[in-house]
Amino acid sequence: MKAPWVTYRPEIKVLDATIRDGGLINDHMFEDGFVRAVYETCVAAGVDYMEVGYKASDKFFARDKFGDWKFCKEEDLRRVLGDKPEVKIAVMADAGGKCDYRHDIPPKAHSIVDLVRVACYINQIPEAIDMIHDAHDKGYETTCNIMAISTCNESEIDQALEEIAKAPCGTVVVVDSFGSMYGEQVAGLVERYKKALEGTGKEIGIHAHNNQELAFSNTIDAIIHGANRLDATMAGMGRGSGNCRMELLLGFLRNPRYHTLPVWKLIQNYVTPLQKAGMEWGPLPPYVIAGQFNQHPRAAMAWRASEQKDQCADFFEKVMADV
Amino acid sequence: MKAPWVTYRPEIKVLDATIRDGGLINDHMFEDGFVRAVYETCVAAGVDYMEVGYKASDKFFARDKFGDWKFCKEEDLRRVLGDKPEVKIAVMADAGGKCDYRHDIPPKAHSIVDLVRVACYINQIPEAIDMIHDAHDKGYETTCNIMAISTCNESEIDQALEEIAKAPCGTVVVVDSFGSMYGEQVAGLVERYKKALEGTGKEIGIHAHNNQELAFSNTIDAIIHGANRLDATMAGMGRGSGNCRMELLLGFLRNPRYHTLPVWKLIQNYVTPLQKAGMEWGPLPPYVIAGQFNQHPRAAMAWRASEQKDQCADFFEKVMADV
Repeated sequence: MKAPWVTYRPEIKVLDATIRDGGLINDHMFEDGFVRAVYETCVAAGVDYMEVGYKASDKFFARDKFGDWKFCKEEDLRRVLGDKPEVKIAVMADAGGKCDYRHDIPPKAHSIVDLVRVACYINQIPEAIDMIHDAHDKGYETTCNIMAISTCNESEIDQALEEIAKAPCGTVVVVDSFGSMYGEQVAGLVERYKKALEGTGKEIGIHAHNNQELAFSNTIDAIIHGANRLDATMAGMGRGSGNCRMELLLGFLRNPRYHTLPVWKLIQNYVTPLQKAGMEWGPLPPYVIAGQFNQHPRAAMAWRASEQKDQCADFFEKVMADV
Repeated sequence: MKAPWVTYRPEIKVLDATIRDGGLINDHMFEDGFVRAVYETCVAAGVDYMEVGYKASDKFFARDKFGDWKFCKEEDLRRVLGDKPEVKIAVMADAGGKCDYRHDIPPKAHSIVDLVRVACYINQIPEAIDMIHDAHDKGYETTCNIMAISTCNESEIDQALEEIAKAPCGTVVVVDSFGSMYGEQVAGLVERYKKALEGTGKEIGIHAHNNQELAFSNTIDAIIHGANRLDATMAGMGRGSGNCRMELLLGFLRNPRYHTLPVWKLIQNYVTPLQKAGMEWGPLPPYVIAGQFNQHPRAAMAWRASEQKDQCADFFEKVMADV
């Protein structure tokens, strides 16, 4: 019997997605002070990448209905993160016509962004690959994040991976958008991605949601099977049930470059106050139920925003009737 | 690639430990109505066993400082559960001189209790084995729960299991009292217990704490490696970080005997109101930290009961300095 959990794999890199995924709770309306505090925490904690938001097109999304982190304009990024950030900066670009990537993503030489993560549903792979080429040609690192993978057939996944294998993205991320997957499923997908991408030099990533309190353990299972690119957020902040908690993940990773104390300080000084002020996420009953039924969290989020928020049995009966 | 998570293993049995482990939050002072509601939920949900408390000796623990479920006198059990409960009833008997077992545990023929779970630290194995013999000879099913197993050497564990293999208990439970173990550690222990108990017909059980949000996933890992006796509690209610959440576990087990809706009803009607009234458990920061440091939760519980309850970075620094 070996004890691999007392050692570490130096290839592993951690991406903080607090502002990006957390922005789905509050329409990206974070104050600069909080974004800067998360950034400083990433620097102090040794986190490798900080994802700050989306490159959404303001042709489709009104600037006055969303905060700056929905759009990640270069001047807004620099206002808060400065001209030479000490961690790599990532943004997410959604397929499905939500991002005017040719126009809105400047050449890397003009940006403090290092990594463009292209997020798509499996029926948007051709568009995603075009986006990856665009960002890669402009000089960025890129990833491909196929969302809602728990709803896809294995033959679809294999076909998508065959195409992605030829694209220039450095990482392909397993994304459990609905927080519905168990460890064995995540392990199976990581193995599947690994096999499909063998010889391409691409890394596998994991982005987990916490509906069933499995975001951290699924991230560990992905690590065990070879994933080297890990997403987490401070205190798990993220849409619905939230994500893998950074403070748990850094406590598990034994690489001395990572430190948990800065994360606890951020939680104490910034995150807990936000929660007390009413910002909510976590594996609350409606999110558990959505995850168990492999559903998008939107109905659960609406339930938690209603007066019936604590009527979890009523929500279960509603979902049971609807599926 | 197989998909074992869509099927089930009929040998698996679930024990609800809500009142027993939850009693460690409130000195076992539950109202009869709540205990009865948990019992009725167990019946409706198909749960196999309900553990209602401890058989603590009133020579050592004052009756007026603890509720009835610290002592589980026969008349108190029958007052709430009736004379013929529809699920098997379990009680826990602690080694270490806390239980006057010869005197306080009546013959099975005079009791509605079916199962006596003997809990011990690894240095109390001889006493535990004596207790197992006593309860077995009186006609009860028995288990042996070695607590705080994350603090034990492998040679100690092997020695203890060699003795327990000869005792008449039906199940040996892997107990992660401090919520410090990762899935690989749980898997390794289940394999170790299995090997040591091979040919004895004993089952392996799992009792997980949720400090690192791993109680549910560790329970799944134990299942994968052969554990057939699973502990869970309603909404995870239990000391400190709490336990594996029943509503998550029953959503994972595919045996049609189990139903989650009754659990959601209990949470809606009883558990959420208790939480709103101030009863607290769950993977809160101080419990995460205690789990990461493989510490008893008592310091974290004291912290959460103090005015500094939300100063999690301060707690981290204190623990860091103390260890």
